[in-house]
Amino acid sequence: MRINGREATQRRTMNLTVNVNKYAEGSVYIEVGDTKVICTATVDEKVPMFMKGQGKGWVTAEYSMLPRATHSRNQREAARGKLSGRTMEIQRLIGRSLRSVVDLQALGERSITVDCDVLQADGGTRTTSITGAFIAMAIAINKIVQKHNLPVFPITDYLASLSVGIVGEELLLDLNYEEDSKAKVDMNVVMTGQGQFVEVQGTGEEKPFSRNELDSMLKLAEQGIYEMIKQQQEVLGPIALKIGSGQTGSNV
Amino acid sequence: MRINGREATQRRTMNLTVNVNKYAEGSVYIEVGDTKVICTATVDEKVPMFMKGQGKGWVTAEYSMLPRATHSRNQREAARGKLSGRTMEIQRLIGRSLRSVVDLQALGERSITVDCDVLQADGGTRTTSITGAFIAMAIAINKIVQKHNLPVFPITDYLASLSVGIVGEELLLDLNYEEDSKAKVDMNVVMTGQGQFVEVQGTGEEKPFSRNELDSMLKLAEQGIYEMIKQQQEVLGPIALKIGSGQTGSNV
Amino acid sequence: MRINGREATQRRTMNLTVNVNKYAEGSVYIEVGDTKVICTATVDEKVPMFMKGQGKGWVTAEYSMLPRATHSRNQREAARGKLSGRTMEIQRLIGRSLRSVVDLQALGERSITVDCDVLQADGGTRTTSITGAFIAMAIAINKIVQKHNLPVFPITDYLASLSVGIVGEELLLDLNYEEDSKAKVDMNVVMTGQGQFVEVQGTGEEKPFSRNELDSMLKLAEQGIYEMIKQQQEVLGPIALKIGSGQTGSNV
Amino acid sequence: MRINGREATQRRTMNLTVNVNKYAEGSVYIEVGDTKVICTATVDEKVPMFMKGQGKGWVTAEYSMLPRATHSRNQREAARGKLSGRTMEIQRLIGRSLRSVVDLQALGERSITVDCDVLQADGGTRTTSITGAFIAMAIAINKIVQKHNLPVFPITDYLASLSVGIVGEELLLDLNYEEDSKAKVDMNVVMTGQGQFVEVQGTGEEKPFSRNELDSMLKLAEQGIYEMIKQQQEVLGPIALKIGSGQTGSNV
Amino acid sequence: MRINGREATQRRTMNLTVNVNKYAEGSVYIEVGDTKVICTATVDEKVPMFMKGQGKGWVTAEYSMLPRATHSRNQREAARGKLSGRTMEIQRLIGRSLRSVVDLQALGERSITVDCDVLQADGGTRTTSITGAFIAMAIAINKIVQKHNLPVFPITDYLASLSVGIVGEELLLDLNYEEDSKAKVDMNVVMTGQGQFVEVQGTGEEKPFSRNELDSMLKLAEQGIYEMIKQQQEVLGPIALKIGSGQTGSNV
Amino acid sequence: MRINGREATQRRTMNLTVNVNKYAEGSVYIEVGDTKVICTATVDEKVPMFMKGQGKGWVTAEYSMLPRATHSRNQREAARGKLSGRTMEIQRLIGRSLRSVVDLQALGERSITVDCDVLQADGGTRTTSITGAFIAMAIAINKIVQKHNLPVFPITDYLASLSVGIVGEELLLDLNYEEDSKAKVDMNVVMTGQGQFVEVQGTGEEKPFSRNELDSMLKLAEQGIYEMIKQQQEVLGPIALKIGSGQTGSNV
Repeated sequence: MRINGREATQRRTMNLTVNVNKYAEGSVYIEVGDTKVICTATVDEKVPMFMKGQGKGWVTAEYSMLPRATHSRNQREAARGKLSGRTMEIQRLIGRSLRSVVDLQALGERSITVDCDVLQADGGTRTTSITGAFIAMAIAINKIVQKHNLPVFPITDYLASLSVGIVGEELLLDLNYEEDSKAKVDMNVVMTGQGQFVEVQGTGEEKPFSRNELDSMLKLAEQGIYEMIKQQQEVLGPIALKIGSGQTGSNV
Repeated sequence: MRINGREATQRRTMNLTVNVNKYAEGSVYIEVGDTKVICTATVDEKVPMFMKGQGKGWVTAEYSMLPRATHSRNQREAARGKLSGRTMEIQRLIGRSLRSVVDLQALGERSITVDCDVLQADGGTRTTSITGAFIAMAIAINKIVQKHNLPVFPITDYLASLSVGIVGEELLLDLNYEEDSKAKVDMNVVMTGQGQFVEVQGTGEEKPFSRNELDSMLKLAEQGIYEMIKQQQEVLGPIALKIGSGQTGSNV
Repeated sequence: MRINGREATQRRTMNLTVNVNKYAEGSVYIEVGDTKVICTATVDEKVPMFMKGQGKGWVTAEYSMLPRATHSRNQREAARGKLSGRTMEIQRLIGRSLRSVVDLQALGERSITVDCDVLQADGGTRTTSITGAFIAMAIAINKIVQKHNLPVFPITDYLASLSVGIVGEELLLDLNYEEDSKAKVDMNVVMTGQGQFVEVQGTGEEKPFSRNELDSMLKLAEQGIYEMIKQQQEVLGPIALKIGSGQTGSNV
Repeated sequence: MRINGREATQRRTMNLTVNVNKYAEGSVYIEVGDTKVICTATVDEKVPMFMKGQGKGWVTAEYSMLPRATHSRNQREAARGKLSGRTMEIQRLIGRSLRSVVDLQALGERSITVDCDVLQADGGTRTTSITGAFIAMAIAINKIVQKHNLPVFPITDYLASLSVGIVGEELLLDLNYEEDSKAKVDMNVVMTGQGQFVEVQGTGEEKPFSRNELDSMLKLAEQGIYEMIKQQQEVLGPIALKIGSGQTGSNV
Repeated sequence: MRINGREATQRRTMNLTVNVNKYAEGSVYIEVGDTKVICTATVDEKVPMFMKGQGKGWVTAEYSMLPRATHSRNQREAARGKLSGRTMEIQRLIGRSLRSVVDLQALGERSITVDCDVLQADGGTRTTSITGAFIAMAIAINKIVQKHNLPVFPITDYLASLSVGIVGEELLLDLNYEEDSKAKVDMNVVMTGQGQFVEVQGTGEEKPFSRNELDSMLKLAEQGIYEMIKQQQEVLGPIALKIGSGQTGSNV
Repeated sequence: MRINGREATQRRTMNLTVNVNKYAEGSVYIEVGDTKVICTATVDEKVPMFMKGQGKGWVTAEYSMLPRATHSRNQREAARGKLSGRTMEIQRLIGRSLRSVVDLQALGERSITVDCDVLQADGGTRTTSITGAFIAMAIAINKIVQKHNLPVFPITDYLASLSVGIVGEELLLDLNYEEDSKAKVDMNVVMTGQGQFVEVQGTGEEKPFSRNELDSMLKLAEQGIYEMIKQQQEVLGPIALKIGSGQTGSNV
């Protein structure tokens, strides 16, 4: 039996509260067990230098943890004067994942920055950030679509993420911090609503893993992500219908 | 009539939720109108280099705003690689204010770091941070007192802070962002439960101010801070009785 | 009796030597007791990005101490790679104070940077910097007025600054380093020639202070600043007459 | 037909020259097609702070590209004053991969830093770095084993890495720069001599990928890595026999 | 007898391999004894800000050592976040030396950046970098001349550099690391093909030196540089004829 | 005739005022024409890490210019967050030069930091800094000798520095800014009281220079430095007699 009485294949409870920030174009407060993240999406009516003049938009993400999001306090990256490698790796992953389900052409020359700020961390902060970031982005993009009357809704599919790992000999879904720190293999999976992979990152932290183990982990993650996307749909309400439809319904 | 229908001498509603972080020794979520701050206090059983060997403790504070705490998104200080002057000024103010009501000798050679992270900003983030930081610190210090059976409760008095300003010709208490940006004079006052001043910082943003105006502002702030301290007492419950008592009641 | 035989209400001797730098548009070497500061004002015929297109000017200040301005040597901020919080706080204070007596509209789209470099520090470096910075700025602005034949002299009033504090039970004016390091309360006051307040920053370093103590400190500072402004007028000579006159006398 | 006339499932030619640096404890110059990397391994008889007192060793890696390793010149990270997110991500990957085949207990309290410096880049610099870093590390560890007469050879298995991707509709092994920049899916695989996975990182750069595509990519990578490990064995000579043997043969 | 059996007045063997980088406009791999440097020249069809609009070109250089170029590993300057004073001094020296033999007017508004990356260091890295940088620059400039049909070949003379020093009582040419670290006087000389001095930098590391010693060192360096320039001519082939000719032969 | 009516071989007037800083162990205000530098020497009773346990002392220097030391204002290096290459090169030169006339063994395990801060720059700031730094160091070392009763005075010789250059066809001594900016060849010479060279740095800024020109420049510099050392002796008074004497006279 796992910590908190979960089954090996059982996700933690996920709570989603949208529109928690009065300034951001899109925002969500996402809780996955004791991992708590605020995601805000900011719209900017221009693109970064390297994207200029291509008629396409851009989506990027930033990630940070409050100093006391963790068991012991971490020094602020602002105080150290630089981002850690871990932070950079995570924010690159979030941004890349989001872009995989956005039709940048349809978005037009504007950019969206999604900030994922971890208030409390108990494992899975990067997967939780991706799942939340997608919601904040969807709300913000919906505002763009309505304001500018875009002909095509620029989000092509749903997106959510979950971790899976091997602790001892057992395959576990959605590891919390304590489980994660004992895991021999750790895998983060990012998938779309159509069941396609966007990112698969498996790491043999302590020992390499076999092809069979890889297959089992992917299968387990897939099921969990499917459930998460259903929760995303509920909370997005009418916006959910537009995602992947190729239409905006903006005249509805 | 002010924005939100307030009287000129009326504070915004303040909500306090304690123990919002499962790791921190003390924490509070403080909302003053639409200004929302998480304060966490971290205890460390050692002091900074410059305080070593004096048998005294130390209290310090850090302050930050999430990128989208404001109307338009601010670049992260971690991404810029350095703290702004404004941030440094504010965190020095919070730390200095907290230390003024702590008996560092009674605290012993340990330090407390209070992190004030602004989730949403609508004016008064530094005064709200001080008021919240005091609560988080009090909860953390109470844990130290109980754990180490300290003979004297190291907090000597209550502490809260409020802004007051002159907008047009009118004296206003507890300015929100819109009022603050139009204020000709802006004053931040930090006071103790005994009605003494810890910090008085008045600035003639656009024009200098007279002695009479200074006197009126101080009087108005004083009344508001008195009300805030009553709310702090309610939320701190039994800890409240120990503050300034010179006793710990740790054997109660 | 105080160090150097001063009365409690007596300022230190202030010496002012103008035009000490052959390149700067305005400069002064100001000595207040053993505190020695070089202030130079630089005119730039453009404004910072955030002020562009408003038809208004800008005034800013920078502050630094030579490494051996103090008892023991301080590491250079350039070597550490960043400004300390104290430096940023002081240069923001100087800039804000200067702007409060400048009619930025009358100045036109140009900016003035006043550099305050402390050669030797013996308490009161920020107040001495403000008093000196005003003189350097006035000389530089007078050159602008003459060169561009401005219709209105853009300085609206005099500006000087002094510290006052409580050491033991006694109220002292213009604290030197030794007194300052023992002070329980420390207050910096910036005032105009018309006796209005520009900045009032009172800090209970060790203990909070009462309303009565605040009142006494303000009164004492006021008298000292009045005397300093008279010295500023003497050294500025004909420029003194133009300040606050609303006229430039540029055709005289 | 691919650029350079390769088959879709054909690797580029790999050349390995060992001991190219007269100071480093282990070194190799590795060429994979036009991608050219120098890997040097440095032995230090102590471990980083966070590993102290555990009786275990540590292996870490650093990665960098010469400014003109690429088509157009890149600004040096030293000149910019910070490492890019890409660099940090790659050096974390290399270090993690190397550690997965090292018995840190058997290594003892010493650390190995492998530097991978890319002289010329034509795709696959991270996989080439891993393949080369393993060789440099093996040579250095062999020196430790001999010098300190270690009872167990601390390397448990071989390690090599290869990329595979989907360009157009076609699955390609070992992409060069031109192919990589057109790839819709990009996957880096790190494997051991026993055919186990150490890292699997698949990214749908432009579009998500299916489970079938994932399976095909893994299979293709596996074959290529098998061939690379054979080349590693040849160049390592007698050291090759000790890897994974659990014995050092140090008395041979 | 010196290390490696050299005479006091004998240079180390110098090997030059041109065109070692497939992207750079000019490149050379230069070995002087065990000192090994890759020099690449990059052409940019614009000049830095401070040179704009003058119709003249610019030449600059950067210098770096791989971490394990030296006996013990050096921390990367990118990891430390800043260039050392030594690095800056060397790259300023290389750039200044190169510019002394380039007719910037004839080059036109384009710039050349020469990167000197030391793969292995055994004394004389700065002099070796200058000698190699000249070759890489010459090849790159020849490409510019041919591509843009420049009327005058913009290189006015050859350029090479050598060190000379006093170890014990003996004058030595071209010091290796071991000799250099024992030298009492160290001098770097940069000369042209016409036997003129571009840079003379003599330093009494441990003790001052006399005028006679200075004269002897200059004479010894001169002879060595003369030989190096002959090797440069051989390796540059037809380009060699254009240097200093005032003609480009671009129509040949 | 030169600017200010000087002969080609005539130095600028040099004024020396010692003990200008009440905290520093040694200090001098040096004016060479319109170049004005404050040099302070700080004694520290320990040595840097890399010198520990050798029983020897250390001497180092830092150099900086006030922002408005120059015609147009320079951004502070502290604000840019890093030292320029020029600053690093100069402070390395000053430190190296000072050390060449100090018997580090005789100094014992203590270090001296000489700060050279340029208040106004009109050419020759590095040579003026060296000449002034020597005086500040000598005063500080004399205090050490007296306080610790050192048996040998640790300064072995005098030290001063001067620039010489070729402007047009003419050889000029001690160039001011205007001359320096037109110079084709620029040479800085650092010499001892015994007429030996400590540093010779000649640079053909615009064109290489011949051996004859080099000889003439050295001769001219030598005469000027001789005169400067006489002025140093006058201002150092009784300390002058101890320099190079091998004795301290500390019991006189």
